[in-house]
Amino acid sequence: MQTDLQIARAASKRPIADIAARLGLTPDQILPYGHDKAKITHDALAGLSGPQGRLILVTAINPTPAGEGKTTTTVGLGDALNLLGHRATICIREASLGPNFGMKGGAAGGGRAQIVPMEEMNLHFTGDFHAITSAHNLLAAMIDNHIHWGNALDIDTRRITWRRVMDMNDRALRDTVVGLGGPANGFSRQTGFDITVASEVMAILCLARDLADLQDRLGRIVVAETRDRRPVTARDLQADGAMTVLLKDALQPNLVQTVENNPALVHGGPFANIAHGCNSVIATRAALRLSDYVVTEAGFGADLGAEKFLNIKCRLAGLSPAAVVLVATVRALKMNGGVAKADLGSEDVAAVTAGCANLGRHIENIRSFGLPVVVALNHFAGDIEAEIDALRAYCAQQGVQAILARHWAEGGAGATDLARAVVGLAEGGKAQFAPLYPDAMPLWDKIETICTRIHRAAHVEAAPGVRAQLEAWQAAGHGHMPVCIAKTQYSFSTDPDLRGAPTGHTIPVREVRLNAGAGFVVAICGQIMTMPGLPRHPAAEVIRLDDQGQVEGLF
Amino acid sequence: MQTDLQIARAASKRPIADIAARLGLTPDQILPYGHDKAKITHDALAGLSGPQGRLILVTAINPTPAGEGKTTTTVGLGDALNLLGHRATICIREASLGPNFGMKGGAAGGGRAQIVPMEEMNLHFTGDFHAITSAHNLLAAMIDNHIHWGNALDIDTRRITWRRVMDMNDRALRDTVVGLGGPANGFSRQTGFDITVASEVMAILCLARDLADLQDRLGRIVVAETRDRRPVTARDLQADGAMTVLLKDALQPNLVQTVENNPALVHGGPFANIAHGCNSVIATRAALRLSDYVVTEAGFGADLGAEKFLNIKCRLAGLSPAAVVLVATVRALKMNGGVAKADLGSEDVAAVTAGCANLGRHIENIRSFGLPVVVALNHFAGDIEAEIDALRAYCAQQGVQAILARHWAEGGAGATDLARAVVGLAEGGKAQFAPLYPDAMPLWDKIETICTRIHRAAHVEAAPGVRAQLEAWQAAGHGHMPVCIAKTQYSFSTDPDLRGAPTGHTIPVREVRLNAGAGFVVAICGQIMTMPGLPRHPAAEVIRLDDQGQVEGLF
Repeated sequence: MQTDLQIARAASKRPIADIAARLGLTPDQILPYGHDKAKITHDALAGLSGPQGRLILVTAINPTPAGEGKTTTTVGLGDALNLLGHRATICIREASLGPNFGMKGGAAGGGRAQIVPMEEMNLHFTGDFHAITSAHNLLAAMIDNHIHWGNALDIDTRRITWRRVMDMNDRALRDTVVGLGGPANGFSRQTGFDITVASEVMAILCLARDLADLQDRLGRIVVAETRDRRPVTARDLQADGAMTVLLKDALQPNLVQTVENNPALVHGGPFANIAHGCNSVIATRAALRLSDYVVTEAGFGADLGAEKFLNIKCRLAGLSPAAVVLVATVRALKMNGGVAKADLGSEDVAAVTAGCANLGRHIENIRSFGLPVVVALNHFAGDIEAEIDALRAYCAQQGVQAILARHWAEGGAGATDLARAVVGLAEGGKAQFAPLYPDAMPLWDKIETICTRIHRAAHVEAAPGVRAQLEAWQAAGHGHMPVCIAKTQYSFSTDPDLRGAPTGHTIPVREVRLNAGAGFVVAICGQIMTMPGLPRHPAAEVIRLDDQGQVEGLF
Repeated sequence: MQTDLQIARAASKRPIADIAARLGLTPDQILPYGHDKAKITHDALAGLSGPQGRLILVTAINPTPAGEGKTTTTVGLGDALNLLGHRATICIREASLGPNFGMKGGAAGGGRAQIVPMEEMNLHFTGDFHAITSAHNLLAAMIDNHIHWGNALDIDTRRITWRRVMDMNDRALRDTVVGLGGPANGFSRQTGFDITVASEVMAILCLARDLADLQDRLGRIVVAETRDRRPVTARDLQADGAMTVLLKDALQPNLVQTVENNPALVHGGPFANIAHGCNSVIATRAALRLSDYVVTEAGFGADLGAEKFLNIKCRLAGLSPAAVVLVATVRALKMNGGVAKADLGSEDVAAVTAGCANLGRHIENIRSFGLPVVVALNHFAGDIEAEIDALRAYCAQQGVQAILARHWAEGGAGATDLARAVVGLAEGGKAQFAPLYPDAMPLWDKIETICTRIHRAAHVEAAPGVRAQLEAWQAAGHGHMPVCIAKTQYSFSTDPDLRGAPTGHTIPVREVRLNAGAGFVVAICGQIMTMPGLPRHPAAEVIRLDDQGQVEGLF
């Protein structure tokens, strides 16, 4: 059995200009990065017109340690659609560099459903995240510099909300004091660092339509308040132009390929907990102009990822999916049904059936957006036939197709049944997408609506000050924004151990944050970590180049 | 009159594969970054053999605000050598991103003697500095992580010398406390950030011969001491492998072109004050295999830049220059002769003659290394004929050719006289290069030798503890290393206002630092700033994209 890495390295990659040609792009419409990566130029993007393809969202049940294979299914489905003669493009997010040095992982898909070059995509790739780090930290430096040179804007140094970022798991930077050492080093204050994927600049890059929109959004970022509580923006600091210059290349989507030589756009990677967790709008839109089918995914389970994809990304970008694929595995459903990971090898049909409550609720939720859904049963070696049958029976009860997909073992050829089902749904014209709530709904009501209708909470509680803050933003003209729920991905509730389909729970809204540039309000429910740490034995200790100069230890 | 930026944008760039072909490199021996930049692959580098070209060092008198044009002359000379039919390659350093957002500037040459693409070289370029930032900060994270999880190496948290880096002018990060916020965030301690070009990782990248040597050097970095004062290295923390993986692409030299379409390798950019300030050894060596002539430069004036180039880079890399070009302008010599910048327009032959003492001392110093030297008189519009004559007369007295060069206005065609003189010197076989001191000389004696023989100090004073520290490193086996003098670039002395050719001064050695990975000991004389700040009105406030999507305000 080949490992993911062996499969990726054995892949017969075609020159990236050939992949671009598949999309109808000429060599001068791309900027190569090595021989197997390229960016699509701003000029080429601006010139795209003509009919748009159909957008397919791949989402999943709540994640468990058993794995569900959402990215793998996204890739496998894209390859299968191409095998069937459709022009399909895959759109996924870029990987964050820092976490790779903590835990092994980070591959783009798995088995025979992968995107390559895998190592580079998990290292510096085309430098997008470094550009985001630079733009974010330039703004931070300009805040402290402004205060140092006289503070003409009257920034209240106790109310600076803009932190710094680094693409590294570094817990020592979570909470810091800067500006020590005397007057030449500025005014001392307490602040900290987040990981780059948590930056609002990342969310902005992923929602911007073009360079002008990017600069507008960057300018709207609120970084602090003045002594009399007025917001201070990046535009007030005249930082938006330089930040745009730093991001001009990063805004161009990255073109790579699957191991079956089909095109994939890998662009942007906002955190799926505190941000909206989707690949860039600019990549999705370009792919829709260049293909008949665009297969994309959203972070975590459907209650978090699909909800944000639909209520934030699709709303803000005017996108509308034609069908949704909900990925499940019998292993993950068994864990949702109460089985421990160590016991997954033993047949337990009752646990699968119990876990199906989680699946069923996601199906209901997706349907509530007016979207047709198909369940992709992502096959793992060792899956037990009776358990698969139980899952099929459950889906039949729900009136939803469940298609066994073997793309991990067989590549696109293992997912052609799934692809046919998706095409049937998408071309059936049943999608009548509508977001869950209208723009005009008050911010608190939006939070309540998502928490009660998607997460099925019985009660939603606001911490002191939360509702007053929301009303202040409402009065300041931000009331039209969608809401981004930040909470654990492991449960419908805020308790990560509460698997399955809990009811009667209370969701506490601890804090709200305004992302005025990205264009949404974040509601933080429970604990959120915006700067990870390294484990006791970080993967970095074993990552190295082997004698052939190839990376080992990264996967 | 066209600006530098207009000239750069009007340049008729050739596809980078054509420039590579000029060097005999095939398309699969380079990794393109866009259409006008590329890296030469490790495989191609490993395969280089055959005769080596001649190495020409371009250095200068002590810098003044009048400007001397060292990089411009390096580029002009390279273009002129190509015009004369020689195969010449230019090797310079990469620009640091951060400072561009403080003061305008950063171009690679000027006028018709420039390297392109100028904007990208001053922004992210091929990402080398971002890779260095990541590798440096991974090591920092692994130090605090090691302590957090039990501190098996018994690191003394009061004696951690490894700081973090960012490629940004951010004075607030010079002096920080990290690890606040409770046990989950590690142990609190005081530390800080340097700018990326000041990182030892940068110096290491510029001195490494290949990937194996890079990893060896990274492993030798000393980051801290244990409670019983033993050194703790990056290898002890098992960080060297992962750091090498992060740097594997960055170690490959970058190929770009001059506005006259001649090849230039732009690679590495260590600070010329606390580090050795030269482009990478790997680029210089590659260029020597690929060309008849390699024109390179060293940071700041010859007392700092050429001294380190010869005593550190040439010694450690086994290089030997064939000739040295010493760049001067009448303007800069007038300032060395006591004229203020505002008064440079008025004729003052006596001031030029007085300022020539600075030039004369650099000529003496270069000759003391056994190297033939020619003075390049870099012509500025408005130069006064009588002053040029005075400079010529001075050089004639010293027995050195002084060649008027007009490459800024005319490109390579304006520097053919200079090129002919350089070829004459280089082919004359007069170079008998020897470093100033032998490896075996004790560390303190090396410092004294450089300070008295190059900087012409009457006395060299060691702060308390300095000599004991040097003896401890001597005993620990580091005594063979060369010494890197860190001091102001504006004077032979440590007083930046003391221009010309001062004598009788004392050089105080304030502090010494071991760069065990780079392979030298740093002697800090006077004040050194390793993290710049932004000015009152940073360039970032006016940097933006214009309506055509081109960068404005950066130059």
